[in-house]
Amino acid sequence: MNNNFEKRSIWLENRKVYMIEQNLLPHKYEIFISENYKKTCFAIKTMIVRGAGAIGAAGAFAMWQAANEAPKNNYNNFIEKAKEEIEATRPTARDLFSGVESVYEKAVISPEEALKAAQKFADKNAEAGKKIGKYGNSIIEDYTNILTHCNAGRLALVAHGSALAPIYEAHKSSKKLFVYVDETRPRNQGARLTAWELNEAGIRHAIIPDNAAAWYMSQGKINMVITGADRIATNGDTANKIGTLEKAIAAKEYGIPFYIAAPLSTFDKECKTGKEIPIEERDQNEVLYQKGQDKDGIIREVLVASPDSEALNPAFDVTPAKFITGYITEIGIITSEQIAEIFK
Amino acid sequence: MNNNFEKRSIWLENRKVYMIEQNLLPHKYEIFISENYKKTCFAIKTMIVRGAGAIGAAGAFAMWQAANEAPKNNYNNFIEKAKEEIEATRPTARDLFSGVESVYEKAVISPEEALKAAQKFADKNAEAGKKIGKYGNSIIEDYTNILTHCNAGRLALVAHGSALAPIYEAHKSSKKLFVYVDETRPRNQGARLTAWELNEAGIRHAIIPDNAAAWYMSQGKINMVITGADRIATNGDTANKIGTLEKAIAAKEYGIPFYIAAPLSTFDKECKTGKEIPIEERDQNEVLYQKGQDKDGIIREVLVASPDSEALNPAFDVTPAKFITGYITEIGIITSEQIAEIFK
Repeated sequence: MNNNFEKRSIWLENRKVYMIEQNLLPHKYEIFISENYKKTCFAIKTMIVRGAGAIGAAGAFAMWQAANEAPKNNYNNFIEKAKEEIEATRPTARDLFSGVESVYEKAVISPEEALKAAQKFADKNAEAGKKIGKYGNSIIEDYTNILTHCNAGRLALVAHGSALAPIYEAHKSSKKLFVYVDETRPRNQGARLTAWELNEAGIRHAIIPDNAAAWYMSQGKINMVITGADRIATNGDTANKIGTLEKAIAAKEYGIPFYIAAPLSTFDKECKTGKEIPIEERDQNEVLYQKGQDKDGIIREVLVASPDSEALNPAFDVTPAKFITGYITEIGIITSEQIAEIFK
Repeated sequence: MNNNFEKRSIWLENRKVYMIEQNLLPHKYEIFISENYKKTCFAIKTMIVRGAGAIGAAGAFAMWQAANEAPKNNYNNFIEKAKEEIEATRPTARDLFSGVESVYEKAVISPEEALKAAQKFADKNAEAGKKIGKYGNSIIEDYTNILTHCNAGRLALVAHGSALAPIYEAHKSSKKLFVYVDETRPRNQGARLTAWELNEAGIRHAIIPDNAAAWYMSQGKINMVITGADRIATNGDTANKIGTLEKAIAAKEYGIPFYIAAPLSTFDKECKTGKEIPIEERDQNEVLYQKGQDKDGIIREVLVASPDSEALNPAFDVTPAKFITGYITEIGIITSEQIAEIFK
């Protein structure tokens, strides 16, 4: 095993934003470099950078870039407009707003202050991932089979990940694990990214069709579920990748503990219940087409559906708090009742 | 609208077995012709023909072909071995065994008797589809949104289909419908075949990622669920395409009626509960790769997962009877208690 999960997925270098190009994984490992805030917005929107924490850091860095680019004679107006533009890239992701807001407060003072705030936000996210790993590991027993949905590994946070952080830690402490990886249609972040990360870390796993999760639960093969989150309301309702709700309902049916792993920046104190969370509807072509590598190593997009049919593509769903056993955060494992206390 | 759903998906012509090549749909409509039982076995195994009823008819026709090919001096032995070979092509499908057995009884007498039995089995299946349509239509109200999983339209039975039969009938009687079509990974029979069939019949629908079903249920968008079945135990437990269980659990959570539509040939009187049903594990490459049409119209297979990871691919799951509201059959809509009565 290696400790790659401690490395950054997004960082500043020579006053430019560097990030792992997640759309090219698992076929190619490349770094995407953004010199200005519009390019960082593009990276968020097209999911070059994705995952709650990584998006948050991208938003924070973009906000600093905007401050840096703002003309002196139109400074406040420029950063105000940039803020709106950045926030519109992925409307469901709470971390994006956390990142943007924490930097915006300082950006109104100066670009230098904004830079410090952005770096601090990124560091804090990586640190949160590390702590989530430690707390989460405390509830993973030896010989555990864990189901995870979508991608919440080291690529999804600045480092360590959220859902995978406890799994990395448990593996590091020599616990025997097996991870069932939901492929996570339509964009296959599980099959493409989570499987890639688990491979990199040397953790035993298998990709399964999203449809198979309940079946393995019914057969006693899954002992616990851990997923990440995109936004958590103060009552504990959680927006995460489409399909999370379906797995949570099945887990409840079979009495399997279902945990959300997320830093506090994913919690939205302005949001009282899941009903208030906007659900991003993405391009139907993400469902109708599939991108992958052919036998000659060329990335191609193929139509995998009836050519005259349309598709619906809600990117997220909301899992009510009643299906969630606990929330693994950087301050410990908390219940939905405690969330309301913390954010009141 | 047209009445294509009344046409056969598999039939005899010039003493050869004709079937719609389902692997080429929706991109190409072609007929596959089989001149001998081994070729029909190949068609079942590779899913050129698929869907419970269509497989049953293919098995019946294959059994006749074997009788026809059997050498006089080794007749019984030959058809005995052929029977085993045909039955091994798709071990979960009850209809396959129904088809093979009903013809085998006559094949031991003569190839001519086998031919009559095979044709009778196919006719009966088409007739069952028609009646399933009529009974099912009686419980569909005007303005209903229906979820279906996998493919159980006209391609899946000899004609009319099972799960889609009531939908065709309701549409024919001018009821306003909208069908949510689970894409049904890993082989996408929903996106490829069900969407194609609904298009052909002019029925409004949208393909959704399998992950989205529970979300639409939670939003009150789905009024009922109808799926087909591959094998039904006498206690009502039902084996069907992987993911059926997950949708059934979610439907129960939201109080949405969940129906199985299947001819009596899908019920296995030897099978007391779902635990006795063997679950076919298929090639992991069906999960790791996706086949589709590129922009130049060429069918290509692309890797959609991390190249160093493995996948699990259970083709079916078992939905316990407690999640099933009723069974739409050619003798009416029955409950799990009635199944035990009928098959005792």
